Amino acid sequence: MNAPDPLARESFASLLARAREPFPASRKQYLAGALHADLRVPVRDIALTNGEQVSVYDTSGPYTDPQAVMDVRKGLASVRGGWIAARGDTEHYEGRAPVALDDGQKSEDATRLAQLRAEAAALQRQPRRAKSGANVTQMHYARKGIITPEMEYVAIRENGKREWMEQYQQDAAREQRLAGNPLGAMIPKIITPEFVRDEVARGRAIIPANINHPEVEPMAIGRNFLVKINANIGNSAVTSSIEEEVEKLVWAIRWGADNVMDLSTGKNIHTTRDWIVRNSPVPIGTVPIYQALEKVGGIAEDLTWAIFRDTLVEQAEQGVDYFTIHAGVRLAYIHLTAARRTGIVSRGGSIMAKWCMAHHRESFLYEHFEDICDIVKAYDVAFSLGDGLRPGCASDANDEAQFAELHTLGELTQVAWKHDVQTIIEGPGHVPMHMIQANMTEQLKTCHEAPFYTLGPLTIDIAPGYDHIASAIGAAMIGWMGTAMLCYVTPKEHLGLPDRDDVKQGIIAYKIAAHAADVAKGHPGARARDDALSQARFDFRWQDQFNLGLDPETAQEYHDETLPKDASKVA
Amino acid sequence: MNAPDPLARESFASLLARAREPFPASRKQYLAGALHADLRVPVRDIALTNGEQVSVYDTSGPYTDPQAVMDVRKGLASVRGGWIAARGDTEHYEGRAPVALDDGQKSEDATRLAQLRAEAAALQRQPRRAKSGANVTQMHYARKGIITPEMEYVAIRENGKREWMEQYQQDAAREQRLAGNPLGAMIPKIITPEFVRDEVARGRAIIPANINHPEVEPMAIGRNFLVKINANIGNSAVTSSIEEEVEKLVWAIRWGADNVMDLSTGKNIHTTRDWIVRNSPVPIGTVPIYQALEKVGGIAEDLTWAIFRDTLVEQAEQGVDYFTIHAGVRLAYIHLTAARRTGIVSRGGSIMAKWCMAHHRESFLYEHFEDICDIVKAYDVAFSLGDGLRPGCASDANDEAQFAELHTLGELTQVAWKHDVQTIIEGPGHVPMHMIQANMTEQLKTCHEAPFYTLGPLTIDIAPGYDHIASAIGAAMIGWMGTAMLCYVTPKEHLGLPDRDDVKQGIIAYKIAAHAADVAKGHPGARARDDALSQARFDFRWQDQFNLGLDPETAQEYHDETLPKDASKVA
Repeated sequence: MNAPDPLARESFASLLARAREPFPASRKQYLAGALHADLRVPVRDIALTNGEQVSVYDTSGPYTDPQAVMDVRKGLASVRGGWIAARGDTEHYEGRAPVALDDGQKSEDATRLAQLRAEAAALQRQPRRAKSGANVTQMHYARKGIITPEMEYVAIRENGKREWMEQYQQDAAREQRLAGNPLGAMIPKIITPEFVRDEVARGRAIIPANINHPEVEPMAIGRNFLVKINANIGNSAVTSSIEEEVEKLVWAIRWGADNVMDLSTGKNIHTTRDWIVRNSPVPIGTVPIYQALEKVGGIAEDLTWAIFRDTLVEQAEQGVDYFTIHAGVRLAYIHLTAARRTGIVSRGGSIMAKWCMAHHRESFLYEHFEDICDIVKAYDVAFSLGDGLRPGCASDANDEAQFAELHTLGELTQVAWKHDVQTIIEGPGHVPMHMIQANMTEQLKTCHEAPFYTLGPLTIDIAPGYDHIASAIGAAMIGWMGTAMLCYVTPKEHLGLPDRDDVKQGIIAYKIAAHAADVAKGHPGARARDDALSQARFDFRWQDQFNLGLDPETAQEYHDETLPKDASKVA
Repeated sequence: MNAPDPLARESFASLLARAREPFPASRKQYLAGALHADLRVPVRDIALTNGEQVSVYDTSGPYTDPQAVMDVRKGLASVRGGWIAARGDTEHYEGRAPVALDDGQKSEDATRLAQLRAEAAALQRQPRRAKSGANVTQMHYARKGIITPEMEYVAIRENGKREWMEQYQQDAAREQRLAGNPLGAMIPKIITPEFVRDEVARGRAIIPANINHPEVEPMAIGRNFLVKINANIGNSAVTSSIEEEVEKLVWAIRWGADNVMDLSTGKNIHTTRDWIVRNSPVPIGTVPIYQALEKVGGIAEDLTWAIFRDTLVEQAEQGVDYFTIHAGVRLAYIHLTAARRTGIVSRGGSIMAKWCMAHHRESFLYEHFEDICDIVKAYDVAFSLGDGLRPGCASDANDEAQFAELHTLGELTQVAWKHDVQTIIEGPGHVPMHMIQANMTEQLKTCHEAPFYTLGPLTIDIAPGYDHIASAIGAAMIGWMGTAMLCYVTPKEHLGLPDRDDVKQGIIAYKIAAHAADVAKGHPGARARDDALSQARFDFRWQDQFNLGLDPETAQEYHDETLPKDASKVA
């Protein structure tokens, strides 16, 4: 969720325009496929002042492409539509009939809501689902030996352009000295489409890509790929236009968010999601129980399987790429949290614990897990199995409740895999440095190498206002140890709702953590950018130093602000 | 060095007043000694809204004591004067006659300089030195079995108050689960004065405390103590008053700097140091070669042993607590940097390399190292053996040049210890995560467990503008592994001169790293503050949560800015 910005509503269109500006000295380029000729895999090429070109991974989608004609009220152009249709195993259908409750009990008055929905009118699509009996997940194709366009796209994207790196990797002794320590990861020098297929088939990587989100630029989450990061956004009380909501998304992917979770609660939840999904080139995750709770007026006890099931279908039809499902919060585990310092801090975890206790029944998510698999495999929605019992402070880390749930998530992973449903596992949270490795080890063992997706972890609890830093330390370490995706933490964590700048601060801290992990693992494409920047620094090519950094604008600003003239070789 | 603030000169006195304000709900208390009854060891007691008291380590000196009457033009009251005199092994003497060149060749015009010196008139002290043949270092006393007041002070300070922690440590199973992994450190449950003596005697810890800096509140740097942090300050072109310079110092220690290095170059270098040392309750380090270079007009080749020697005496008489000496930059090592990506980046290292190459001679620092020992042991100036060949980027990490120098630093450590000179070892710099442990291992082995003092290290190079974060990751890790003091990095690193806010950002990032390391090592007094804060968080005692954090003001601000009213249980 995001806080109201001090910026007036009128400025969102112009903020959006600014968020679309290409990075300095940068040009978006597209790489073609070999197996699938129509692939256009984006990279960002940075032109250096000495004539070199450096090419980097690009999460920003068409927004930073000046050629792209865009209208956020109509949504992005389809990337995958043709591939999905060509597979011939899906069909358009009427879809679930929208009802007023989809936007929650607390929605705007009818006039206002109608107005908001009218804004979203051109974003409506007729949904697709698998033909009867078909399974349309990337894992299903992978296990059948099929290399999908999505898989080749990912392979090309993970490799990026490599030619420019050669000059930085020629010193064999240096490469030997700097060789990474993969700690069990097995990253090949070049990622082939077949390697992607194999990783997806084994469940060691996922490609979140709902068939109803054809706008997505495919990406992979897996230990043997680049470490990814997720940013959370979501509507706030004042969200009032498509531009505003989409601007947050565009801002997040501009700075490098590989995934975005829409954690909207409260008002206009369905309509907001239309805006986000239709305009997102990155996979969108949600926590469906949040919306289900809105439908029952916020009373956890009133949740039912029927309402939850209906919400899953609703969101699957909209194109959500992965669902956080807190199916590991079992009735029997709840008492294990009694002696904790901070109890249950996961929102989804609390909701489910409340439900279980109120009814003194096993979780309906756990009991209906196979039913959920049946639903999601018809759309290729991936699972992000939620850690509802994650520790809320260092002193609750690695306790019995946390690991009991993790074991259940491992069991559910195997159920999901029986249905070829792509699955990742959510992890903590709050863990002191010396206890991080145990989390990774336990997760790899218990969850059969399904990708791990952690929130931080925060290494200490005494830094409110700076938790992006306290957690970037833990995130970098667990990323090195094998976590595939890092969920960001902003400076406002524990204190309030992040604004635009907080989102950026959180993302940059996590790009640092992810890159530090990639370098430590010895990802063959990771270190060259550092080399290029260091060389620019040594050569006093200031502009190149800025432009090769994660945030060229801030670097340049800091430099111009203070450095005495005689040290700034290039103005 | 620090950048000009956008604040007008007139405001420095008021900034200083603000930097002196006690932290919210906090009261400075003093603990008495047992062996030495006159000790007044500061702690900061934080009163919680539920009646609890939490007591924390306090680096801020008398500045945050509302009882303290202070005048920065006269300097702080003496803490150690009586102890030094009572030892009877030192004597006052005339001291070296000040010369105009002490303030450098580029100093102000005579009128202005006279005015600045007049401001510092009441800060002049007659220096002390060891009586002929005496050795007055803490290490010397320690090896003779003497527990000095400084040692007892340190023991009390490291323990702090512990009674309040008991309630957080009663759950045996939890304590077992969270037990630290000291990785070879041996931190006793309670630090005794005898333990401090033994650690200092072995060279595993130092207490930087020049006999001419009696204002210092003794502190220890060692692997078996709390991890410390250093902040760099220093004059800039616009430094124009005592208040301004002292305000930077007070600001740095307010946020938790355990040590401050005065890296002034340029104008008024001697007079600035008077201001800083006389007003500092924390140890002050310098790099004497910087001042020596000013005396020869910035021409490295013109440096001589005589000028350097004279500068050491000058600074020792002023009360500098430790000297960075780049005596490990030997002629034979310089060629090892030829194939580096970024050559020699240490300023001191570059100066010495230039000198060695110009004269094609062994470094005069190396050749005169025993002479330097003879000087410093008469004042108890500690050594911080500089890593002049530290890597300037990830791709130069752990190379032959770096480790060759480290071996020499180990050799020099043994020379220093022959003279009972307290010694710490400086370390990098830029090191990817997977290569950090090798640094610590090599340092412990090569330098005989002398305390390690690292700059970061930065784990990646692509985050200009955010290097405090890129390096806090490395700092936390190497702190856990055994580094005793972490030199901070600010967001302006590589870009420009840090302003006031950058200094604070750098310090907070490093307090996080140091605390994360203490928790991971299992320091028996470290985790309880996290527990108290987490408990406050769980109980919705917002004010306590803010006040227990590293930066109460920012936490409160972030909270008040954005949190919806219904979530803020206490306004």
